[in-house]
Amino acid sequence: NMSTVNKTAHEFDKQRLEALLNRRFFYAPAFEIYGGVAGLYDYGPPGSSLQANIISEWRKHFIVEEHMLELDTTIMTPAPVFETSGHVARFADWMVKDTKTGDVLRADHLVKNVLEARVAGDKEARGVAAQPKEDDKDKKKKKKTAKAAAVQLADEVVKEYESILAQLDNYSGPELGELCRKHAIKNPDTDNEVTEPVQFNLMFASSIGPTGQHPGFLRPETAQGHFLNFSRLLDFNNGRVPFASAQIGRSFRNEISPRAGLLRVREFTMAEIEHYVDPEDKRHERFADVRDTVLVLLDRHVQSEGSTEVKHMSVGEAVDKGIIANETLGYFIARIYQYLVKIGINPSRLRFRQHMANEMAHYATDCWDAEIHNSTGWTECVGCADRAAYDLSVHSKKTGHPLVVRQALKEPIVTEKEAAEFNKKVFGKTFKGDAATVQKIVESMDEPQLLKLKGELAQGSATITSEDGKEFTLTPEALTIERKTFKQSIREFTPNVIEPSFGLGRILYTLLEHSFWSREQDVERGVLSLPPLVAPTKVLIVPLSAREEFTPLVQEVCKSSPFQGRPPYGLHVLHLIPLAS
Amino acid sequence: NMSTVNKTAHEFDKQRLEALLNRRFFYAPAFEIYGGVAGLYDYGPPGSSLQANIISEWRKHFIVEEHMLELDTTIMTPAPVFETSGHVARFADWMVKDTKTGDVLRADHLVKNVLEARVAGDKEARGVAAQPKEDDKDKKKKKKTAKAAAVQLADEVVKEYESILAQLDNYSGPELGELCRKHAIKNPDTDNEVTEPVQFNLMFASSIGPTGQHPGFLRPETAQGHFLNFSRLLDFNNGRVPFASAQIGRSFRNEISPRAGLLRVREFTMAEIEHYVDPEDKRHERFADVRDTVLVLLDRHVQSEGSTEVKHMSVGEAVDKGIIANETLGYFIARIYQYLVKIGINPSRLRFRQHMANEMAHYATDCWDAEIHNSTGWTECVGCADRAAYDLSVHSKKTGHPLVVRQALKEPIVTEKEAAEFNKKVFGKTFKGDAATVQKIVESMDEPQLLKLKGELAQGSATITSEDGKEFTLTPEALTIERKTFKQSIREFTPNVIEPSFGLGRILYTLLEHSFWSREQDVERGVLSLPPLVAPTKVLIVPLSAREEFTPLVQEVCKSSPFQGRPPYGLHVLHLIPLAS
Repeated sequence: NMSTVNKTAHEFDKQRLEALLNRRFFYAPAFEIYGGVAGLYDYGPPGSSLQANIISEWRKHFIVEEHMLELDTTIMTPAPVFETSGHVARFADWMVKDTKTGDVLRADHLVKNVLEARVAGDKEARGVAAQPKEDDKDKKKKKKTAKAAAVQLADEVVKEYESILAQLDNYSGPELGELCRKHAIKNPDTDNEVTEPVQFNLMFASSIGPTGQHPGFLRPETAQGHFLNFSRLLDFNNGRVPFASAQIGRSFRNEISPRAGLLRVREFTMAEIEHYVDPEDKRHERFADVRDTVLVLLDRHVQSEGSTEVKHMSVGEAVDKGIIANETLGYFIARIYQYLVKIGINPSRLRFRQHMANEMAHYATDCWDAEIHNSTGWTECVGCADRAAYDLSVHSKKTGHPLVVRQALKEPIVTEKEAAEFNKKVFGKTFKGDAATVQKIVESMDEPQLLKLKGELAQGSATITSEDGKEFTLTPEALTIERKTFKQSIREFTPNVIEPSFGLGRILYTLLEHSFWSREQDVERGVLSLPPLVAPTKVLIVPLSAREEFTPLVQEVCKSSPFQGRPPYGLHVLHLIPLAS
Repeated sequence: NMSTVNKTAHEFDKQRLEALLNRRFFYAPAFEIYGGVAGLYDYGPPGSSLQANIISEWRKHFIVEEHMLELDTTIMTPAPVFETSGHVARFADWMVKDTKTGDVLRADHLVKNVLEARVAGDKEARGVAAQPKEDDKDKKKKKKTAKAAAVQLADEVVKEYESILAQLDNYSGPELGELCRKHAIKNPDTDNEVTEPVQFNLMFASSIGPTGQHPGFLRPETAQGHFLNFSRLLDFNNGRVPFASAQIGRSFRNEISPRAGLLRVREFTMAEIEHYVDPEDKRHERFADVRDTVLVLLDRHVQSEGSTEVKHMSVGEAVDKGIIANETLGYFIARIYQYLVKIGINPSRLRFRQHMANEMAHYATDCWDAEIHNSTGWTECVGCADRAAYDLSVHSKKTGHPLVVRQALKEPIVTEKEAAEFNKKVFGKTFKGDAATVQKIVESMDEPQLLKLKGELAQGSATITSEDGKEFTLTPEALTIERKTFKQSIREFTPNVIEPSFGLGRILYTLLEHSFWSREQDVERGVLSLPPLVAPTKVLIVPLSAREEFTPLVQEVCKSSPFQGRPPYGLHVLHLIPLAS
């Protein structure tokens, strides 16, 4: 009887969930029999299916419904591309080393772990939080994070810590180093001091070709593959914006010390959209469809004040009030919300947080993260950034290849201005080898200079001087200056890019957390209630015995199943698991 | 009128096809605006769709229909895995350098290009082949391959060249070097001599983690990811074989000098199956379903004789005659055939070629390639190898982790043999610190030694000697030897692996060649007749004008289309391309 199911009878137990996921091979550490490698995971059959279904729905929700242009570009990328994009110089995290053991820690994570532990210890000392349970499970868990001694802190210290934690992503490397010194932050595993933060580039490096002379990187995002193909995509879309390209694929980040399961990994599947839009018109034609979608927003002003208080607001209102910068950004934030809720993310554990100024990636002008709450706190699962014209501009400048839109103007822009007309014959005769130089000087004049020259010519002649000090005398026979009408019928511009970027592994893991509960009568009986849309197993045909006589019968049932032959993508329709074997 | 369509009115024109694929952005060189990188390609919207449909059908044909266990494992792999698998030592090609320019060439490709050109030149001189057309197109084309001077060769030289070409894949590096010297093979681009062949490992190297102390490689195949998860997969399948794992994903090979478009690339999408089977029983339960499938076979004996004459034969007959080693290999070869034909490969341009002894990958014991004919000749598109127990054995040995199947025997195996039983008390008292040593000596005895010892004990006592020369006297009080009955009810074995491995990019490209033709009345009007199953565009809604008033109407038609909402995976159902814009 469904009405009696109580999914909240037991508190969420992460270890119980992880044991289930491991036992059923949703995923497991890669190279486990070789001792594993931090931050690398393999998906087993149910994990692969769940991922495939999440991707399939993503493709439908975004690529098909929004008529996006799909791409599949390479992971291996020659170094010059990431030099231009800024990743070689700036795609880095700050790391510190334990001064005695040499262990490497990510600086911001160190500060976060230690200060959070102190705040928790303070709460414990004040009797606000429950005493930690003294069973083995908790001891084991605690070892992995900073030690939380139950020490009461001064009120102003607690306030300072909380303020630091609220704007942690806003600190530079040197600032993180200063925080470590000021607050005596040490490596919690060893209690040793740590070095000053140094930058570590997160891209995996390799080399292309047999001679070793072409350095390359594994892409840390799929985006550059979109931008480099912009001209071809624009042609494909008949030269018009807005349009979007989309790509689902693997990316790589050589994380400093990945520890959080699927939430921070070195190799992951992303889904990225690059939506190209006129910088002067960021409206979206289907914005009305999402205007009333109510979101939970945490804007940058609130965070800068050291607070994490959210606002509930419709997308329409947020755009109207300028909290979300434009309709297109708002449209995608709403579509991201719809997608996440559709595949089973609990909307009450989903918020959109705006990046603070220092936190933003080097290419972004505005950015909102879809953060999903889970047992580790709030986790960024989707970024939605306005990259402006950054990428297209830098690649165009570097390669000399124009990455622009040329738009026929409905109403040509008519302007009047002074223009010089040269009598080539006289000009050539008069100035000979210097003719081109003289013409260039005149052509580079602005309106006031041309008007002055026009006046002088009307009086008989004018003298101009070249950069190297040579003087030339101009006459009305050599050139005339007249007011002319110009009609501009083409407008050329570099489009801006709105980029929704999805970390599918993080979404998959938080979805599993949101879907897990234990039966009221038996806490050991864990359940994953995944929406049918993404559930890896939809039909289970279970023979009562493993006896061979059953095999042909089971096969017949399989073939006759109404699901056979048209399963959703990646679905294992039938699992033949005998009850007794 | 369909009945009047003549698809063979014009000869296949590769340049026309390539221009079409480039113009419509099926695929293009990656990083084109940066000058490109050999062997790296990006797929545009129609190419991505076609690839997604090919993958979707593959998933249905293999994973769903055969109930395979899907995996998604990491690309980045720590070095020890490929040291064990043999790839660090042996996954290499032979390369030579131009002695003057330093240009790098693949040794086997050099020999092939030069000898094929000489044979063609001979045919031309004999008037067998048509004179080459003297238009620009052909000149340009010829530049890329070896020069084909119209020189007649002695009959025995032609025969020797043809014999070398037929078994080209059979030569080692030193043998290729000898061929270059013996037949004066030089770099056709420069006419310079080349160096002796040296090995170049084809794996891209990188390093994992911030300290640079963990070398890693990008996988050159997905297979190792399957093998390392074997225990988990076996558990998932309730401990029973046969079963198969399957994975679709990116792999990387740092090819020496990739030149053949999508046919030889440095990054590619593979689909691999690892089918685990009892080495003593390689029958397949659904073999009867494919027994009558007729294939075109080119076995290794024919090739060793320098011939390329094929046999037409049913899979059943080929297995019965031992041409194909076993039912499981035969079953998969037939299923590969069915899949390729289903997605549109021309069956008359498809053959299965068995690898020769020296050609086989280091792990394989038998291997058949599905070769598809295209404008460059016969191209390996699918490999179907029997890897035997190689991979599971080496990983198990290296890691100490058992990668075996434990099978309950239906009839326990009952054996009788002599067995020693120790009287622990007496034994300990008699031998003290040496008790364990003495026991080990006895336990390591074989049947005849035990019988001899038994006889001596029956006479009162026996003396045995340890490795370091110490003597011990055994008595009937310390141990007895008796004939006992043993019942073995579990059989333990390392399964063999049959591996069908698909290069999806090669299949995609040859499919495009097989699908391309020009209209009889107008050679410029190229057509791609792809089967609806994989065609990237199935419905096209075309407004008669780009005028804005049409937009809502078109959107309404899109939404009402019977295809909307349930497109096959990856399909761009609707392309809104105005006829006039």
